Amino acid sequence: MAEFTFYTVAMSRGQIARWALHEAGADYEHVVFDWATRPENFKGINPMNKVPTLVHHHGGHDHIVTEAAAICHYLAETHPQAGLLPDEHERAAYFRWLFFAAGPLEQAVIAKAMNWEVPPERSGMAGFGSLDLTLGACHDWLSQNDFAAGSRFTMADVYFGSQFIWGLRFGSIEERPAFKAYVERITSRPKCVEAVAVDQKLINDAAESS
Amino acid sequence: MAEFTFYTVAMSRGQIARWALHEAGADYEHVVFDWATRPENFKGINPMNKVPTLVHHHGGHDHIVTEAAAICHYLAETHPQAGLLPDEHERAAYFRWLFFAAGPLEQAVIAKAMNWEVPPERSGMAGFGSLDLTLGACHDWLSQNDFAAGSRFTMADVYFGSQFIWGLRFGSIEERPAFKAYVERITSRPKCVEAVAVDQKLINDAAESS
Repeated sequence: MAEFTFYTVAMSRGQIARWALHEAGADYEHVVFDWATRPENFKGINPMNKVPTLVHHHGGHDHIVTEAAAICHYLAETHPQAGLLPDEHERAAYFRWLFFAAGPLEQAVIAKAMNWEVPPERSGMAGFGSLDLTLGACHDWLSQNDFAAGSRFTMADVYFGSQFIWGLRFGSIEERPAFKAYVERITSRPKCVEAVAVDQKLINDAAESS
Repeated sequence: MAEFTFYTVAMSRGQIARWALHEAGADYEHVVFDWATRPENFKGINPMNKVPTLVHHHGGHDHIVTEAAAICHYLAETHPQAGLLPDEHERAAYFRWLFFAAGPLEQAVIAKAMNWEVPPERSGMAGFGSLDLTLGACHDWLSQNDFAAGSRFTMADVYFGSQFIWGLRFGSIEERPAFKAYVERITSRPKCVEAVAVDQKLINDAAESS
């Protein structure tokens, strides 16, 4: 049995977690399904019924990790030899942008896509402010730093960077030169290419057999 | 000069970060302002213009941490002697619930408060599902575990738990026995009481002088 079981849907945010698995060099097997055929027992593993979900078979226990950003960081911690954790000078930015992407940026992108507006009198409640403000903060950073944690690729880029990969692809984030250059830097990594190819093959095979 | 400078507003989510500072035993000074009088240079520190913001004066550098959840975890990592980091068996749940609170739970609470509805045909896009679903997942966990990471208080409880402290107080999260018991467990901690008292005094002093 592999050390990790990875539950995913090929055309989903599961692709972020797969990239993280490949960057970490994790020993994993996948359970791939589509939304209509998800396994009977899956809700017992993740009551949100969501992918990606990772199960770590470790020391006689099954540890469940959900949330794509948590999965990325968990894999970095359990595979320190992969060198994807921040050092003490990179740590502040690493966690800042990891949580920024999982919180305000995600919220702002979704709110924009859904045409949700925050009434001005309640702006203090919605910590994401607006998509312009969140993208502005990211742009400030990426104009001065090549990666989320500074000058070097870390696991934070798998998650933070995926927001930009998907956002530019689907038009939910406007293309700016600093965002485009960042996406090119991270998607050219061999482990990213390798992980994407696995899901793309699953998507192609499913299309051929349907 | 203290090791950390903490920018905050007394009546804000800055209270979460202050609790984390006290649990960690951090050497900090605070810069307290209200929304109308925020310091001129603050936007240069955090372009989102938001509190809490933490600056770590470390090794000749100023490391900036934003996002309340990131600040909590950063303080746990920089103060390992406080025993707030997860061990290897707690780590999956620790990061799962930390990111769950910063992502889906926060989004679901805000969407509900704003009366934003996800159209059924776009439910796959909004990873938080619904407030019922996110609270259900938390309820499953807290019915079987006393704390976010399992049987012991860790830094994840400062952030995850604060969602329930604030949610029950303002009515944005419905009161259920498991949530209420959890809030009582964590708010009775001496460091929580101590941190809340600092902000409460600032709030009272401001009210008296106005």
